[in-house]
Amino acid sequence: MRYFLSCFAVAIVVSLLTLNTASAEAIYQWRLAMSWPEGTPMLHNAAARFARNVEVMSGGRMRIIVDAPGRHKAPLGVFDMVRSGAYEMGHTASYYYKGKDPATTYFTTVPFGMTPTEMNAWYYYGGGLELLNEVYARHNIVAFPAGNTHLQMGGWFRKEVNSLEDLKGLKMRIPGHAGEVVEKVGMKPISIPPGELYTALERGTIDAVEWAGPANDVRMGFYKLAPYYYTGWHEPGAELHVFINKEQYRALPEDLQVMIAISAKEVSLDILSEAFYRNVVAWEEMKKESEINVRTFPDDVLNALKKANDELLNEVAERSPMARKVIESQKAFLDQSKDWSRITDEDYLKLR
Amino acid sequence: MRYFLSCFAVAIVVSLLTLNTASAEAIYQWRLAMSWPEGTPMLHNAAARFARNVEVMSGGRMRIIVDAPGRHKAPLGVFDMVRSGAYEMGHTASYYYKGKDPATTYFTTVPFGMTPTEMNAWYYYGGGLELLNEVYARHNIVAFPAGNTHLQMGGWFRKEVNSLEDLKGLKMRIPGHAGEVVEKVGMKPISIPPGELYTALERGTIDAVEWAGPANDVRMGFYKLAPYYYTGWHEPGAELHVFINKEQYRALPEDLQVMIAISAKEVSLDILSEAFYRNVVAWEEMKKESEINVRTFPDDVLNALKKANDELLNEVAERSPMARKVIESQKAFLDQSKDWSRITDEDYLKLR
Repeated sequence: MRYFLSCFAVAIVVSLLTLNTASAEAIYQWRLAMSWPEGTPMLHNAAARFARNVEVMSGGRMRIIVDAPGRHKAPLGVFDMVRSGAYEMGHTASYYYKGKDPATTYFTTVPFGMTPTEMNAWYYYGGGLELLNEVYARHNIVAFPAGNTHLQMGGWFRKEVNSLEDLKGLKMRIPGHAGEVVEKVGMKPISIPPGELYTALERGTIDAVEWAGPANDVRMGFYKLAPYYYTGWHEPGAELHVFINKEQYRALPEDLQVMIAISAKEVSLDILSEAFYRNVVAWEEMKKESEINVRTFPDDVLNALKKANDELLNEVAERSPMARKVIESQKAFLDQSKDWSRITDEDYLKLR
Repeated sequence: MRYFLSCFAVAIVVSLLTLNTASAEAIYQWRLAMSWPEGTPMLHNAAARFARNVEVMSGGRMRIIVDAPGRHKAPLGVFDMVRSGAYEMGHTASYYYKGKDPATTYFTTVPFGMTPTEMNAWYYYGGGLELLNEVYARHNIVAFPAGNTHLQMGGWFRKEVNSLEDLKGLKMRIPGHAGEVVEKVGMKPISIPPGELYTALERGTIDAVEWAGPANDVRMGFYKLAPYYYTGWHEPGAELHVFINKEQYRALPEDLQVMIAISAKEVSLDILSEAFYRNVVAWEEMKKESEINVRTFPDDVLNALKKANDELLNEVAERSPMARKVIESQKAFLDQSKDWSRITDEDYLKLR
């Protein structure tokens, strides 16, 4: 009996030693706060897809629970929650955090700025990713681009805009930096909750509305009230981001770090593809249902918007040296790439 | 002594059982045959990047050795080597294998066809990926898109092309499907080894040459001899692919399968970004060095090329039902997306 006992003891020690070598790997049970409500087309799917890919690739060693604002209550508080470590991760848009740090604004998109292709070239080969993390490191966050939603249209207008004069006093739902730009040219940007937009447009509380793209707009029905659909200038390819608490990211083994980086990039291409696809399908549907007049703003409007945008960027650059660095890096790459985009993308679309 | 022996036997059995549960994970030592010579800008980097990402994410459980044609001797034999299992993987372009199966041709690019954004939307949301694998399953291959090289220009011409008449009899280095198209409009496509192209252009053995893009062309010096640079029509975003032997892919555990799929998609976005970035930089360099005249082919040339291309596609579709299925799926999505691309990408590039 003594022999049996010692025998089991040896067996147990040996097996524990073996187990220890074979799976020292900890299980990470992480939480991701996304800015988008449960079920938001494309965006919720993207966060869930990112989480699932990391979980499957890690063989379950990293599990990421995705929480919508219904749970964490802070759609625009993802920055703070990840910075503090309340959430290990977030999926959000950098330009929501202008109030925290003006330099964060331009990583999403800039009026008259880079297309998705140019933006990706800047991020991955033009120093953008390094700059993003120089900015976010100051806030204890590691950030990755994680989803470009393609170009946005300029919004739905009840009446045709034939000159800058027609815009004076016009009330439009258009938030953020673009709202400040249109205000500079005489419009009145108005903030209205999404659920009230249709009625506001119907009653003339607003004259125009900028929302997302056909895939989301089709359900809102704006095109039935405001049949002038203006082409885009203010968000030529908004990039979303994955945020990760920096200390927690650094404490991860290398394979999990790479899984996160690669999954973010996969989602980046995936959202762009999904957004484009869904907008194509919804745009076709809208056109069948209603007569929509696609218009480009006249030159005087575009020139005024460009001037106002440049002035705003200069103002921010004067206040924040870090914002200046981002603005100048993007501007330099855009200046360099404009001609190439013109003779490839633009020319091809014209001739085919 | 007997007790000791039995005791060790128990210990060994228990520890083996434990080992078996904890790390059933086999090590996969795979080889990838790429079509590109060692050091080809962007392309070699992409294959190496793909291999490295899988290795790091798998914690070394999957190692992929990348072989260039210098080793495997068959740059255009990747299809056969992966089909047979001589190589587990390949990185190549689908349209090299037209002779094996005409349906493979169009997964790379089609003249006057989809842009990279449209192509990705079609692949990931418009049924393209499923169709790709329907075609390749017949050849014992699993395929993933793995790198779009962005739009190609129409080539370097020694003289300006003012009409279709100017093209008659013109000798041009332009391979593949596009070569057949230009032949139909009266040109003479000529095949010349890369190392002899400059001299051929200098001596007038050829009048024009289509190569890759500024990033590669700058070293070839064509722009010094043929200063008319025509905008693109024939390869509006060539997509490369990762091939995997189907049986070997299916035998992999799920996490490794997903790592391969996600890494292919990461490389897809990465090459597009790198190609765009490098072309932008090289294009700027070329323009500084030499006077280059960018031209778009006149309408009669473009119309003749479109007609010739349609005829060729119809001929292939009549011979191969599978090719017809691919051509029709792409055409349907292109017809659907053209208007959206026009009012977003094209209009934005014009107005900004």
